Amino acid sequence: MNQSLLINALYCRNQSRPPVWFMRQAGRYLPEYRKIREKHSFLDMCHTPELAAQITKLPIDLIGFDAAIVFSDILVIPEALGLGLHFEESKGPIFERPLETVEDIHNLPRIRVNESLDYVAKTIKLLVQDLDVPLIGFSGAPFTLASYMIEGKTSRDFKKTKQWMVKQPDSFHLLLDKLTDLVIDYLNLQIDAGAHALQIFDSWAWILNDRFFEECSNFYLRKILANLKDRSIPVIFFCRGSSVFAPLIAQSAPNAISIDWNANLKALRAVLPSSIALQGNLDPDLFYAKPEILETHVNQLLKDMQGDKGYIFNLGHGIKPDTPVDAVKAVVSSVKMSPY
Amino acid sequence: MNQSLLINALYCRNQSRPPVWFMRQAGRYLPEYRKIREKHSFLDMCHTPELAAQITKLPIDLIGFDAAIVFSDILVIPEALGLGLHFEESKGPIFERPLETVEDIHNLPRIRVNESLDYVAKTIKLLVQDLDVPLIGFSGAPFTLASYMIEGKTSRDFKKTKQWMVKQPDSFHLLLDKLTDLVIDYLNLQIDAGAHALQIFDSWAWILNDRFFEECSNFYLRKILANLKDRSIPVIFFCRGSSVFAPLIAQSAPNAISIDWNANLKALRAVLPSSIALQGNLDPDLFYAKPEILETHVNQLLKDMQGDKGYIFNLGHGIKPDTPVDAVKAVVSSVKMSPY
Repeated sequence: MNQSLLINALYCRNQSRPPVWFMRQAGRYLPEYRKIREKHSFLDMCHTPELAAQITKLPIDLIGFDAAIVFSDILVIPEALGLGLHFEESKGPIFERPLETVEDIHNLPRIRVNESLDYVAKTIKLLVQDLDVPLIGFSGAPFTLASYMIEGKTSRDFKKTKQWMVKQPDSFHLLLDKLTDLVIDYLNLQIDAGAHALQIFDSWAWILNDRFFEECSNFYLRKILANLKDRSIPVIFFCRGSSVFAPLIAQSAPNAISIDWNANLKALRAVLPSSIALQGNLDPDLFYAKPEILETHVNQLLKDMQGDKGYIFNLGHGIKPDTPVDAVKAVVSSVKMSPY
Repeated sequence: MNQSLLINALYCRNQSRPPVWFMRQAGRYLPEYRKIREKHSFLDMCHTPELAAQITKLPIDLIGFDAAIVFSDILVIPEALGLGLHFEESKGPIFERPLETVEDIHNLPRIRVNESLDYVAKTIKLLVQDLDVPLIGFSGAPFTLASYMIEGKTSRDFKKTKQWMVKQPDSFHLLLDKLTDLVIDYLNLQIDAGAHALQIFDSWAWILNDRFFEECSNFYLRKILANLKDRSIPVIFFCRGSSVFAPLIAQSAPNAISIDWNANLKALRAVLPSSIALQGNLDPDLFYAKPEILETHVNQLLKDMQGDKGYIFNLGHGIKPDTPVDAVKAVVSSVKMSPY
């Protein structure tokens, strides 16, 4: 397992074609997923280790990705904190009790992650027994978790979050601090359970300018990295905005940065240390494209990163629910046939 | 007028403190604007030269900006094409007849911009008579206009636009071509009327990857620049995504690039030609901040760009409707007192 494509690429020592996996690869675009989803709520699927393990393996068996990522959600930490999470089909996640006052932050319950999120550890333990690709554990980053907890749902302008951040920075950072401790415990739990790599999702960091990115995202990334039990397990950091913030993120030295779909990876590689792996960054809307357009973009990306010892082929954002499975298969096949 | 701060900065020859103006500086945050708005619809305000001129001047008189921008909207071209534009208070622009088929593109009426949009020329002519700061004319860029025309409203994921772009690239570019011709005519109309500078808004270009940005935004920017009557009038290009795409935009050689709020301007300046002016990029949400936080960000930006002959202080995006006027005044005052 340690010699796998993914792990080698995360340590920038891959001497073969790039590994390929996709964010949200176990999701609604797969008919086999939708069949399971018919019988269970999304959160039940996350909470039930046998189901979560089964779903995690679906895209490995059906599409042939080079890595699995635990089937779960970045919002399991706020859910464990009692904010009342549910999912609405077209709206995404909704918190029944979003944070509204400083008191709400002070009143967050103390939870033991190894009890509240034990089901994730169980899922990982089930998976590492019989997967023959590396397993990626993950967590939401403190800033993105805080944003969801304040907005209560997906937002277009993140106005509540940004206003809280600039009007009451002390309590905003108190919240980030509390969440950072939980993220550290949660990632350590996943290391203990046997995950082979970790990804931290700060999905909403693109709403920040460079100074706030440093204060609210990068600072806490460093704190998390410094407190993981075992840095022999590689860590990937993803955010929308990474096309801009990658040089700042590199200073925090995660093993890899996962890049959103905006940037040209070759240009970004030229300004980043060769010790940091790059993951990304195909635009997921390209799966809807005419085959020749999809192929052009995939081939360009493969050509741009050819021979790069630290490149992992992935998307610039999660795969969308109505993505055609055949297009996904075609891209994975192209990556697998690409020359080193 | 030619020796004004703004014009000097746009030609990278300013030897004084930076000029300052804000996108949407004549807007709902001003009580004097809201008073006029009570009596007229937004579109009536755009369509009536006397009103539009009066509103354009409001922030010059009340706040003391160094440049005026014609009070209008980027959607006046699609409106003139008969798509049925109206504005809903909380939702923004709505087109009653968005484009749905290739036929809809073929059926777009031929319009004469100098007739349909003559009211903008009239507004400019009224303004140049009595403004003592330079007047900026503007247009939406073809890609952003096309996106609005296809989505029919502001969108969170631009799915219809991106699907059209990748599934039917020929008709998508046919639309961009038609719009480019209209944008050229519209900007030339504004030059003829007496505008001192122009800004092109490709607000939604951040949804593109670098290759699509080149094909759908940058390519048409070059076509527009090549067809303006009089390049002695400087042209500014703005898009969200400029933090990433600025080096590509620079290759098209507008006089200035207006940068969204993500990037560190000093870092961006270091990789861009010194012949291109930079405008930006204060995060407009900072107006809600505690005064010391706002001050820190403003001072950092001024310090980073101090002595830059081609720097224009602006926001990374338009000013928001509930922005406190006093915060705006404080920032303008800080810029005006900043040392060269």
